[in-house]
Amino acid sequence: MSNFHFSQPLDLQYGCVDMSHGAGGRATAQLIAEIFYQHFHNEWLAQNNDQALFQPPAGRLVISTDGHVITPLFFPGGDIGCLSVNGTINDVAMAGARPLYLTAGFILEEGLALRELVKIVASMAQAAQVARVPIITGDTKVVERGKGDGVFITTTGIGVVPAGINIAGDRARPGNVILINGEIGTHGIAILSQREHLGFETTIQSDTAALHDLVANMIAAVPELHCLRDPTRGGLATTLNELAQQSGVGMRLFETKIPISSAVAAACELLGLDPLYSANEGKLVAICPATQAKKLLTIMQAHPLGRAAAIIGEVIEDDQRFVQMETAFGSTRIIAWPVGEQLPRIC
Amino acid sequence: MSNFHFSQPLDLQYGCVDMSHGAGGRATAQLIAEIFYQHFHNEWLAQNNDQALFQPPAGRLVISTDGHVITPLFFPGGDIGCLSVNGTINDVAMAGARPLYLTAGFILEEGLALRELVKIVASMAQAAQVARVPIITGDTKVVERGKGDGVFITTTGIGVVPAGINIAGDRARPGNVILINGEIGTHGIAILSQREHLGFETTIQSDTAALHDLVANMIAAVPELHCLRDPTRGGLATTLNELAQQSGVGMRLFETKIPISSAVAAACELLGLDPLYSANEGKLVAICPATQAKKLLTIMQAHPLGRAAAIIGEVIEDDQRFVQMETAFGSTRIIAWPVGEQLPRIC
Repeated sequence: MSNFHFSQPLDLQYGCVDMSHGAGGRATAQLIAEIFYQHFHNEWLAQNNDQALFQPPAGRLVISTDGHVITPLFFPGGDIGCLSVNGTINDVAMAGARPLYLTAGFILEEGLALRELVKIVASMAQAAQVARVPIITGDTKVVERGKGDGVFITTTGIGVVPAGINIAGDRARPGNVILINGEIGTHGIAILSQREHLGFETTIQSDTAALHDLVANMIAAVPELHCLRDPTRGGLATTLNELAQQSGVGMRLFETKIPISSAVAAACELLGLDPLYSANEGKLVAICPATQAKKLLTIMQAHPLGRAAAIIGEVIEDDQRFVQMETAFGSTRIIAWPVGEQLPRIC
Repeated sequence: MSNFHFSQPLDLQYGCVDMSHGAGGRATAQLIAEIFYQHFHNEWLAQNNDQALFQPPAGRLVISTDGHVITPLFFPGGDIGCLSVNGTINDVAMAGARPLYLTAGFILEEGLALRELVKIVASMAQAAQVARVPIITGDTKVVERGKGDGVFITTTGIGVVPAGINIAGDRARPGNVILINGEIGTHGIAILSQREHLGFETTIQSDTAALHDLVANMIAAVPELHCLRDPTRGGLATTLNELAQQSGVGMRLFETKIPISSAVAAACELLGLDPLYSANEGKLVAICPATQAKKLLTIMQAHPLGRAAAIIGEVIEDDQRFVQMETAFGSTRIIAWPVGEQLPRIC
């Protein structure tokens, strides 16, 4: 709405969101123009309609939606803004797709400081730019103080799946190999330590990152890839249980092979948490035929987001669909599907 | 996740949403299986991945996102569920597009009664079925009691634009004619009367409806259509001001030509509200060349959602981009672009 003129610019230093910003009139238009368009500017937003028009490339498309309600809004290594961009890019990429566009729906709480909103929107814009996936349309609503929690962001992503790629949660087969692209559990522990003001010696940073470039390299090298999924809420344990359920298989993990930083391991021990259930925001699980595993591992390790990639287990036959783990002590333990999460509002 | 088995079904009569339902584990899977999949079931949800895969038809696509935070959740003529489906279908249709698919992101407040959630989800499912636009993927988050307000729903819609159709907010030209498909202001007044427990003699019902079939008829008959927009938040006045701003034109309305029910007119007079600023959820404004206006009107009136359609004004040259109205008394009044809305959280 860059052709609209407002008598006073928004007070981005001391101003707050008020109910008029969600009411659809001049105040809404000004918020959109001076904050959202200012940071997200691109040719689709410039269309200035209630929807964005684009010409998709040929092929199958995927669409994914993810709401973000994380608390606190700012945490070591990121904030709700970049998280909402990276998280949805990853959900699209987990189909092997190349993400094309994002949309963003904001639910703001009355009283939110405009300077906080600006920080969040700038972080989204930067994440979108780094990922080369523009935010092409959106929506803003405002709820009364005490009816929301600062800001909720629902992002939707759309992507195109290269021909010949068929990645899905029901394609894990006995004999397949399970890989992960790096150290687990950091996002969950970063949020917990921030929330509880735990003063660890080293600050543990969220691993939030967009994984689509890594995925593009992986499917180019190993188009036979069977499954990809990002172990976010519920961590690695939950994601592997979901895949085991969907594919009707069991899994065997090797505890000593699962990458984990010493800081996260120490924090988990101190807090009595299991890193297998701790959330990740820049990790993916890949399942591929055994013959392709070494090749896939090499490709993953060559990417900045896969340097600590590892083969962590294998898919086995099991009518009960259990995920089990050989521990460092040589015993075997069942990795159960949790009812809830260790922490609420982790993403 | 229909292949998952849960020891106890959800208590849909007396149960409530709790934090575990948003944590990504078994409780989330059960909520999805027994409420969302139960009502939305379709081949895309059955893919059971974090994203839905589809093959788009050839052509340009549009995407639109809309958050819904309406209060109360249930109101005369609808609820947040059908509103969230119809609203986003309409945003897609306002590009002249045929809506293909929807996604839905839920933000639930801890303590929400499951039977209310079921009513809302069933209403969404019914609206989607009537409109023939399936909900193909989604997401569920839960926030603590007092950090949300029952349920917020962000829907995203994707649609395909027929070849040769170019509808946009900047295409209104002096000499064009302005039409509307029926009586204005009913949604806003329905919500207000429900919220304030106003006992009007007749219950005023929200006009929530999906307009894509009407739009399909309109563009088939008049492919030269210039603008379409649904006058939701801020009502007809706000939408016409937006279009005037975007197109760099003025507009002249004729008060006596604007359809309004006697019930809404009476309620507005009683409450001191202006129906021009009252929200609609089943209305569209169309702008077309004068030569096509009568033909377009006939087509609109032939559709159940356009029976009370009317020509309400014309586009004029005006560097100031004012929307003005000839009143019933023959005087002229400027229809200003409001700062906010008469009512918060109307959609």
